[in-house]
Amino acid sequence: MAHFKLAFLGFGNVGQALAALLMRKRGELKERYNITYTVVGIATGRHGRIINPVGIDLTGALELVRTGHSLSLMTNTLMFNTVDFIHKCGADVLFENTPVNHQSGQPAIEHIQIALEHGMHAITANKGAVVYAYKELTELARSKGRKFLFESTVMDGAPIFSLFRFALPGARLASFRGILNSTTNLILTRMESGETFQDAVRFAQKAGLAETDPSADIDGWDAAIKVAALVTVLMGVPLKPPQVERNGIRAITEEMVKNAKAEGKRWKLVCSAERDRDTVRSRVAPELVSPGSPLFGVEGSSSVVEFKTDVLSSLSIVEGNPGPETTAYGLLADFLNAVRS
Amino acid sequence: MAHFKLAFLGFGNVGQALAALLMRKRGELKERYNITYTVVGIATGRHGRIINPVGIDLTGALELVRTGHSLSLMTNTLMFNTVDFIHKCGADVLFENTPVNHQSGQPAIEHIQIALEHGMHAITANKGAVVYAYKELTELARSKGRKFLFESTVMDGAPIFSLFRFALPGARLASFRGILNSTTNLILTRMESGETFQDAVRFAQKAGLAETDPSADIDGWDAAIKVAALVTVLMGVPLKPPQVERNGIRAITEEMVKNAKAEGKRWKLVCSAERDRDTVRSRVAPELVSPGSPLFGVEGSSSVVEFKTDVLSSLSIVEGNPGPETTAYGLLADFLNAVRS
Repeated sequence: MAHFKLAFLGFGNVGQALAALLMRKRGELKERYNITYTVVGIATGRHGRIINPVGIDLTGALELVRTGHSLSLMTNTLMFNTVDFIHKCGADVLFENTPVNHQSGQPAIEHIQIALEHGMHAITANKGAVVYAYKELTELARSKGRKFLFESTVMDGAPIFSLFRFALPGARLASFRGILNSTTNLILTRMESGETFQDAVRFAQKAGLAETDPSADIDGWDAAIKVAALVTVLMGVPLKPPQVERNGIRAITEEMVKNAKAEGKRWKLVCSAERDRDTVRSRVAPELVSPGSPLFGVEGSSSVVEFKTDVLSSLSIVEGNPGPETTAYGLLADFLNAVRS
Repeated sequence: MAHFKLAFLGFGNVGQALAALLMRKRGELKERYNITYTVVGIATGRHGRIINPVGIDLTGALELVRTGHSLSLMTNTLMFNTVDFIHKCGADVLFENTPVNHQSGQPAIEHIQIALEHGMHAITANKGAVVYAYKELTELARSKGRKFLFESTVMDGAPIFSLFRFALPGARLASFRGILNSTTNLILTRMESGETFQDAVRFAQKAGLAETDPSADIDGWDAAIKVAALVTVLMGVPLKPPQVERNGIRAITEEMVKNAKAEGKRWKLVCSAERDRDTVRSRVAPELVSPGSPLFGVEGSSSVVEFKTDVLSSLSIVEGNPGPETTAYGLLADFLNAVRS
């Protein structure tokens, strides 16, 4: 039986869903994997921070945060900042789930670096850390005999990075095409039922998918950062989000959506990348998709990516109905993969 | 650098494609995985058998078989039978690719058993061995510190079993739905363009997909054996092909295909299974599929399976344009997974 001390840095929807999932799977982890755990630290953005070496009561912590209280009610430790928290939490595994910084990946990169230097596995749903520091953090992890894993950064909990890491040995990725941004896909799907662009945006906001300022989704930045992550990790070519050719969906009118539908086609915000000798051409742009494509049937907040490799001419992964629970599963899978390998 | 001696039992389209793939990947296996290999044995159904402890010239062997000659031209060893071949080949890895026996899985099961007892990894594209002896062969492999792997038995080289083995830790499969037989899917797709059932069957035969007697495909037996393999391995519930409720596509008329098309739907031969307490309900049957389903867009000889698990509500894998090369890749992937783990 192996025991692991876990710490959460960031405790929003995804962190809370992970806490709930860990509690639900406690018995199964013990039976199937001989793994037990305690949570020794939780640092939130607005609800305080707590460290407890003998284990935090997760049910109590979730209850406090969900009702708007501070975790400091559970403890009498002194205040400390985020960096102190990582230094002092004493965990074996850090789940880094602070908000994404699309420009620099900070401060998540620093958090992960400190965790790895302290001999923790570092697991994140933060795309910024991957596109701005994949190579450095992976090398640091290797030098410490630890893992830096990030399955939940693209397509929530669907196993994209694990697929190539474990299940497709000897395959070389030549190109991919996909729908990786849920918000724009939902908006385009709603517009096909006759909704205006503005109403569709408001619907996506109410559904908790689009931010108050939805421009990161609508202008293709979220899609571009995911393309950069896939190219960097799966094609071995470092790529930053501004290097991805990028067009959002603002130019797609209700008229265009209607005309496409009449022709049996659909507008999709397509993410694509293709090797071109030693470099990669990458793009986020609205494209008219025909029924034969694996992208055609992917509606609402679902996502898809079609991979072309030298050994399998077309392999697609489709994820339906994602949510914080599926992102949380990607983090749990990374944890299990880190400690069982 | 690790060196492996390989033997091929069965050298039809798939075995030959694997030989070609191994030759193409020789440099990459060395550079990426520190793996070198020699082929020390090839046993064919109609072109003789050969064992050579210092390595068989694969280019020469492929040339002989493709031009209808016997491998005995390359050697002066005495004749031996298949079982002798396994005993004497001296390989580290046996690729078992003899024809499938839908009733008993023999003689493939015996071949694999002997190989494992001799301390070889056993890798097969033979579904019969999985549905009739998964548990026994897996336990035998474990007791010998070897692997029994069979990625190519379902959806050619697409990583279905590896996905659950490596990339979805802690996930419990609740149900699946898919299109797993290429021949019937191609026939139904051709019928949508107005072809008669008989003409579509002849087209599938010319394309090398359907056998001279196409009933194993058309009556759903091939689909049923794949369902049995998925349920046995991924759901942990042993299931034999006759236990799968089974209806083929003979009852699907051109009229029905036309009517479905007019409604924007499609007839598909759907494979499905669902947990029901400790048992599993499984079925192969023609179903009308709507555009929202991941199965709808899967045309021609492509295949798909949608998995529902307790942690990801819908994860689908789609494989486009399969062929002997993709099946060969599944065998190569199994080889790499067996020796690197």
